[in-house]
Parts: sequence; structure tokens; C-alpha cells
Amino acid sequence: MNNFFGVSFTHNFMSIRLGRIQLHRIDFLLLFVPLSLACYLLKLPAIVSFTSAAAAVVAISHLMVEATGIISQRVSSTISALINATFGNAIEFMIAIFALRAGLETMVKASITGSIILNVLFLIGLSMVAGGMKYKEQRFNKDSAGLSSTMLIIIVVGLAMPSMYSILVGKPAQDMSIAVSVILGVIYLLSLFYTLVTHKHLFIVKREAPPSGSYRPWPFRVAVAILLISAIAAGFESSLIVDSITPLIDTLGITQTFAGLVLIALLTNIPEQISAARFARLNNMTLSLEIGMSSALQIALFVVPVLVLLSSTLTGSTMDLVLSPFELISLVMTAMIANYISADGICHWLEGAQLLAVYALIATAFFFI
Amino acid sequence: MNNFFGVSFTHNFMSIRLGRIQLHRIDFLLLFVPLSLACYLLKLPAIVSFTSAAAAVVAISHLMVEATGIISQRVSSTISALINATFGNAIEFMIAIFALRAGLETMVKASITGSIILNVLFLIGLSMVAGGMKYKEQRFNKDSAGLSSTMLIIIVVGLAMPSMYSILVGKPAQDMSIAVSVILGVIYLLSLFYTLVTHKHLFIVKREAPPSGSYRPWPFRVAVAILLISAIAAGFESSLIVDSITPLIDTLGITQTFAGLVLIALLTNIPEQISAARFARLNNMTLSLEIGMSSALQIALFVVPVLVLLSSTLTGSTMDLVLSPFELISLVMTAMIANYISADGICHWLEGAQLLAVYALIATAFFFI
Amino acid sequence: MNNFFGVSFTHNFMSIRLGRIQLHRIDFLLLFVPLSLACYLLKLPAIVSFTSAAAAVVAISHLMVEATGIISQRVSSTISALINATFGNAIEFMIAIFALRAGLETMVKASITGSIILNVLFLIGLSMVAGGMKYKEQRFNKDSAGLSSTMLIIIVVGLAMPSMYSILVGKPAQDMSIAVSVILGVIYLLSLFYTLVTHKHLFIVKREAPPSGSYRPWPFRVAVAILLISAIAAGFESSLIVDSITPLIDTLGITQTFAGLVLIALLTNIPEQISAARFARLNNMTLSLEIGMSSALQIALFVVPVLVLLSSTLTGSTMDLVLSPFELISLVMTAMIANYISADGICHWLEGAQLLAVYALIATAFFFI
Repeated sequence: MNNFFGVSFTHNFMSIRLGRIQLHRIDFLLLFVPLSLACYLLKLPAIVSFTSAAAAVVAISHLMVEATGIISQRVSSTISALINATFGNAIEFMIAIFALRAGLETMVKASITGSIILNVLFLIGLSMVAGGMKYKEQRFNKDSAGLSSTMLIIIVVGLAMPSMYSILVGKPAQDMSIAVSVILGVIYLLSLFYTLVTHKHLFIVKREAPPSGSYRPWPFRVAVAILLISAIAAGFESSLIVDSITPLIDTLGITQTFAGLVLIALLTNIPEQISAARFARLNNMTLSLEIGMSSALQIALFVVPVLVLLSSTLTGSTMDLVLSPFELISLVMTAMIANYISADGICHWLEGAQLLAVYALIATAFFFI
Repeated sequence: MNNFFGVSFTHNFMSIRLGRIQLHRIDFLLLFVPLSLACYLLKLPAIVSFTSAAAAVVAISHLMVEATGIISQRVSSTISALINATFGNAIEFMIAIFALRAGLETMVKASITGSIILNVLFLIGLSMVAGGMKYKEQRFNKDSAGLSSTMLIIIVVGLAMPSMYSILVGKPAQDMSIAVSVILGVIYLLSLFYTLVTHKHLFIVKREAPPSGSYRPWPFRVAVAILLISAIAAGFESSLIVDSITPLIDTLGITQTFAGLVLIALLTNIPEQISAARFARLNNMTLSLEIGMSSALQIALFVVPVLVLLSSTLTGSTMDLVLSPFELISLVMTAMIANYISADGICHWLEGAQLLAVYALIATAFFFI
Repeated sequence: MNNFFGVSFTHNFMSIRLGRIQLHRIDFLLLFVPLSLACYLLKLPAIVSFTSAAAAVVAISHLMVEATGIISQRVSSTISALINATFGNAIEFMIAIFALRAGLETMVKASITGSIILNVLFLIGLSMVAGGMKYKEQRFNKDSAGLSSTMLIIIVVGLAMPSMYSILVGKPAQDMSIAVSVILGVIYLLSLFYTLVTHKHLFIVKREAPPSGSYRPWPFRVAVAILLISAIAAGFESSLIVDSITPLIDTLGITQTFAGLVLIALLTNIPEQISAARFARLNNMTLSLEIGMSSALQIALFVVPVLVLLSSTLTGSTMDLVLSPFELISLVMTAMIANYISADGICHWLEGAQLLAVYALIATAFFFI
């Protein structure tokens, strides 16, 4: 959607022209916006409501990406980074807020862990396999991958502390979670400062040559309008998703943790996955990795602190960052393997398969719990 | 014995000519085949039976290496890889099967952990010290070492899951162990596909220049016969070893875990250790590292899945992959340090000593437990 | 103070000439030697006694650095390394011995963990930020940083073993701590052998061009006398610090662990921190990293073994190496991130901020416990 360093990029989906209106394949999923409403009103089974709302969310998030892409090109890089961070994670936020209000805190925390693991292991693994089926060997910028790997470790340290505290000391970890969130948030602001101020020369080139930009001929004002309307629609669909998740969990016989870690994480990161795989096929592995890493980092450094710090206001009680030991070990392993894979700046399909294997191992474990 | 990528190599032991028959020093250990039988029949003390069977096993496994080396040169690379994987780990397999039948599951699992740790820390550490006493600095192929390091992490993740599940959830982990074994087995097959099909160009050079090949003038048929006879003898000696291990444990006052982790692991990997140290002295550090890493990986990606999946058929109950927390932390540390050491592609004796120190620390811990 | 490889270097503080006597700013802190004695005799509040003794210790350790610097240039490199190791850690030793006698074993162990974490995360992080405010990018020797990172892992493995043993087996870990100390001590001796004998060619260049050497025109005999007098004064101040620490803990409402991990660790490493930051501003990041790493390694490989092996003689009971799980996870994370940061040989202020963030996260956690 947008990378960690505030540079936006858009999807190059096959597009279709209908007279003056250019439609992308994914836009047809917008039909699911009214459909999901119908499902809700007709009280159809949870799996149907969930699926239609999920399809609608994918289409809406695609529209939001396009709109933020157009808006980003007209505003300063600082405002652009802010817009990208906010709207790029809007759906994660909304689902989390609705879920927290519905008492699904375990699921929300699992979806945070899940998003990080999914973006680093599944998305990057898939990209390496997709690219590796076309190219024997692909290269990527290991400096930027290394910086992201180090951020991952900081995140793991941060998330480990309240969890360890809760397990070992047995006391509530809200205060420690707030302290950790502040530190993670400060690191996020510092990394923006690095990207936008002190080391912007490293990132300017990318900005001047966006990958062919937006297809759509939307003027600036239309883009703003579409962005706002999409955000409202996204909020509505998020509430539908959360409403249908509890019956869905019962129907499928899965746990809240598995639902958050796999279902919600997959759903809220579909656009990133498609983009990343596409760039990999275009031999731009650097961008694929950045999409995966930046998406994971934004969840942990932006969504998590905001959720923890606002949860008291929005839901009445402070969300803590106490994860289960399985979630913790999965994050540690993810951070370790991300560093190993990114260390040499070269990849091939087997490295992708290795990442997917680790994802499969983790998903298997959570299936059994 | 044979490396992870299906390339075979043989030992350059000092050899002696007796008329037309060329004998290697190690062949004299074949005398222990009848001796160990005698020990068994005479019901000599466990330490004597165990030692004589162990010496016989070393000699037999050397014969098997020579025979598979000759056979490998006549068959396709795929069949060669298969033969190497099967016969290269035959003794590990047989001892494991007999031990599982004798109810020594703890020892079998400890010997798996022990083989991984031994090959990565002790064998590679010894090679670096052996080579480092002759050369100030030695270089090795860090790409292949890096791929192996990543595999080690996957293995650690895989083995951690059932152990964590058992500790935290407290339920039997057989089903999860089967799932993990399938994933590890798939990764093994994929890595063979990578080596033998999609990226075989990276490995052909090595195959065309095997390190001087086999000394022995055995024709193909003789080699096949010797391989089969050796396998039968190996099976017999394996059963002797397992028979004498329980009384040996009592005599020495050690635990099943220590016996598996140190004794069995050392015994079944002696040929690899001698080869690796020799290649290090010949300044072929790349090969030394490959022997150690591939031996560790084959245990985890080939022996472990096969054992878990066949254990139900062969022994009546499914072996799970639940390791003790000490075994787990030892594996995690081994994987971490393997990556650190292999990252730069250069080594010297102090790095070898560092690996040996970690091995000593782990062995010490298991001695105290 | 002095690096791991036995090369000494001195501080380039602003100095002031008073006739023939050259004074450094830090020397004015020597006034705190009599002041701290006065505080003690007048039984002033703990915070006053502690602070004045701490200021005196900083001034004394600076004198000791200058004196060892002059002495090192006249003796063989082996004796120089020995003097540096002994006097460079004299204050840590003395405080530890007095604290052990006072029954503050938890604090002593926390101060060991704290010194390692502080030197690796805080000191190196601060240096990277200090240097990064002046230079966009700084380079350092990644080979030496890599060797130190690997040592850190060995230390973590070593310290993990007795802690795990105590947690999992529940028995006293004195014997295992002694075994671990012997192995760590052997690795220390081997690394000196590497530096001073087998690979001294790598370190000679540094020795021939010490960073401008000592300012002071002390003759050799005067330096020896000053060193011995300083050592005695240091012993006296150490006993004052330990005497005031228990009432200080009560006053501030902190734990022994927090006092050791943060207060004692900060205090005993102030000279290193100032030096490291200064060298970073002079764009000698290699030296900054070496100061931090070598200081951490000397604590673990020299101070820890000596303390454990002598504790029985000096205090009547053997100090074990059982750390709390929080200390252990902090060490593991420190070792991991040290490796990640040092892998590429390049740094900038954001990497420094990342290290400081991890330090902040760890300190926060220990504050809450």
C-alpha cells in the first residue's frame, strides 16, 4: 500500500475501459458493498456475511490506495506520509476498534501478531516464489531490508516485555504496555524524521519515479471525496465483519486466536499481497520486500501504539500488549528468519519456500492450540 | 558422508596395499564385527560390548561410504541423492528404530538434537581449529552456508512447536508432530528439487571434480554387494548397541538424554567428523562446513520425518517431537551461532574454539541435569 | 578504557594547564574523594553519600586509565593486556566483592547483566547518535564487531545454562556456574592468545598509532605510584558506595535488581561512555564500538569467572550465575540486536536510536518489576 518510508505506490491490475470510466478488475468487488448490507439485513449465515463484507473491504481498500496515491502527489512529503500511514491502516484500525468494543481483545492482539507474521513470512515468501518461478535469482536492496529487520527485533523486544511481565509477575501489564507503546511510537516518529528530513536524499529517487502512478484520471478533489466516502464505507464493512466474526468462530470451530492470526490478518492485508507478488514478477524484489516489511512495521509501530493509547478513550479499558507464549515465539522466529533471509540481498524460490514453510509451521501450531 | 545437495565424497585415509587388496587403516576395525558378536554371546560387561559394537559400526559405515561413492558415479544424480540420503543415514535410522522398540524414546529424541548440535558446533568447530592450526585464515562459500543456516532455523521452529504445545497446553503432541514432519519432509524434497533441477548449474562443477574419488578398484556390482552386506551388518551392530545401552547407562550413572545427546550422536557421526577435519586441513573449508551442515540437516529434514511417520508402523506408537526445554534452547543457540559464524565466509581457529566452547557449555549443562 | 584486544587508549578531555601541572576537567571530581569521606563520617543521607562516592569513583577511574596508558607503553603487550584487564575492571571487581560480602548477590548479578546491556546498547547507541549528528553515515570494522558479537552469544549461552537449570530442575547451580566460568575463562585466555600471539599482525597497527597517547608528562615510576594509590582509593570509595546502596534502595523505592542493572552499571562504565561518544564525534566509530563491546566482554569473560571462582574464598559462599528470566531475555535480545547492527559495518543516527530504544524498553521492564 505505502512503504514504511512514506513513499506511495499503486497496483497495476489489469484495467478495463468503459467509455470514460476506467475500471480495474478488483472494482467489480464493489458490488459486495450493497450485497454485504443485504446479507446483514437478511441475517444470512455468518460465513456468507463475513465473506461478502470481506470482498467489499478488499475493493474499498483498493479504492483508498488509488485515492491516496493521487493525493500524495500533490501534497508535501510529510503530509503524504501522514495520509498514507492513516488511510493505509484505516481498515486494520476500524476492525480493531469494533472488535475491542465487542470484547474480542484476544482476537485483536492475535490479528496484530498475525499481520506481522503474514507480511514478513507469507507475503515476502509468496513474492520470492512468484518472482523465483520467472527468475533464477533476484536481488534486492539489503540496506533497507536490514533497517527493517532491526525494527522487527525492537518490536519483538517491546512486545515481549509486557507478556513476560504478565507471565512471570502475574500482575496486569496495562502501564507497561503504555510505556512500551510510547517507546514504539517515538521510534516510528524518529524513523519518519530519518526518511523525510535527515536522510531524505536516499528516498527522493524513488519518489520521483513512482511505478507508473495511478491509472485513473481522477482530479485532486474527486480523489479526496472518494477517499472520504471509502473511509466511511470501510467503517461500515468493518462493523459487519466484527458482527459476523463471533458466529463464524462458532461455526468453524476455531479459536479467537486463530481467527485473528489467520483470517483477519489475511483479509486486511490482501492488497499488499497482490501488489508484492506483482512487483516480484516485475523483478522489483526490493519493492516487494518493502511492502511486506513496511506493512508489518506500520502495524507494530503505528497501529499498536495508537490502539493502546486510544483504547481507554474508545472502548473504556486500556488494551494491554500481553501475547500468548506461542505468539511471542512466533514473532521471535519471524524476526530471526527475516534477518537471515534479508542479510545477503539475493533470493530465489527456495528461500521463498522456506519462509512459507515457517508460516505453515506457525499456522499449524495455532490450529492445534 | 554426502552433502545436503546430493554430492558424494569419500575419505582420504591413509591406505595400505596387501597384494591386490587395498586396505585403509579404518578397515582393521572390521575385526570388531566378529568381536562384538563374541562379546554379546559371552555376555561381557556393557561397556565392552558397546565399545566393540561402536568400533564395528565405524568400520561398516566407512565401507558404506566407499560403496555409495562408487555407485553414485554410475547412476543419475537423482538416484545418487536418494542412495546417499538413505545409506548415509542408515545407521542413525537403525539405532533409532531399535531404540524406539526398546522404549528409549527419550534417548532417540536426544540423539536427534545431539546429532544436530554435534555436527554444527563440534564438527565444524573442530574443522576450523584443525584448519586454523595450518592456515591463518580460511575462506568458505557463504551462500551455501547461509542457505543451510536458514534451514536450521526452520528446523528449530518446527521442533519448537510440538515442545511448546506439550509444555503450555499439556496435551499429547503426536498429531502436531506428524504435521511438522510433513512440512519438514516437503522442505527436504523442495531442496532436492532446487539442487537437482532448478539450480543444478550451481552444483554441477562440484560433481565433475569429486575429491579424487574412491581408492578402491571395486566394480559396480561388487560395490552394490558390499553396500547391501554392510547394511545388514550395520543392522546387526545397531541392535547390539541398543541392547548394551541400557546397562551402560546404569554403569556410567548417566541419563538417557546424555547418552543420546553425546554418546549416540558422537558414535553415529564419527566418519563425518574425520572427513570434515581432513578437508579443513586441505584448506577446503567449504566442504567441511557442508559435511557438518548437511549431516545436521539430513537428520532433521529426512531422518526425523521418516521416523515420525513410520514409527507407528515400526514400533506400534507414534514418536512425537516433544523435546526438553534444554534441548530446545540448545538448538536455538546452535542455529543462532551457526548463522553468526557463517555470515562472513571467513574463519580462523578462534571461531572454531568459539563453536567448541558453545558445545562444551551445552554438554556441561546436560551432564548436570 | 582498554579494548578487548589489549590495546590501550586514553581520553581526550579538554585539559587545563596550571603552571607545570596539567589538569583535565574530570580531575576536579577528585575533590569528591575527601568529600565522600566527610559525608560518610557525618552520616549524611544515602543519596548524598552515594553521589559523592560515585563522583570520586569517576575521577579515580580516569586517573587509573591515564596511568595504565603510560605503563602500557613501556611493557610487553602481554603484560600490558594483563594490566589493562585487571585495572580496567578494578572498580567493578571491588564493588562486586564488597556487595557480595554485604549479601547483595542479586544486585551484583544484575550489575553484570546491566553492564553488558549498557555497554552494548546504551554506550554504542549513544555513540552512533553522537556521531550521527555530525556525519550522515559512519563506517566501522565489521570483522572485529562480528567476532565480538559471536562472543556475546557464547556468553548468553553460558549464562543461560545455570539459570535454566535452576528454573527447570530447581536445584542449586553453584557447580554448573563454576563449570561455565571455567569455560568462559578459557575462551578469554584463547582470545588473548589470538590477539597477542597467532594473529597479532591484525592488531599491531593500532598499537603503533595510539590516539595521541597520554597528555600527562608522568614518568613511568610516578604512573605506577599513581596507579597503586588510585587502586587503594578506589577500594575505599567502592566500600562507601556499597555501604550507601542499601539505604539508597529504600529511599528511592527501587529493587536490588534495578539498582544493579541501572545505577551500578551506569556508574562503573561512565569513563567508557565518555570515551566512546568522543571517538564517535571524531568519526572513529570502530573504536567506539570496540570500547563498548570489549567492556561488555571483559565483564562477562574476565570479571564473571574470577568472581565466581574467587567468591568462595572472598565471601564464604560461591556466587552462582542464576539470572532472572527477564535478565536472560534481555541478554538474548542484546546479543541478537548487536549482531544485526554490526553486520553491515555502516551506521547512522537512527541505528543508534534503535539501540537506545531497546535499552529504554529493557530499563522500563525492570522498572516495573
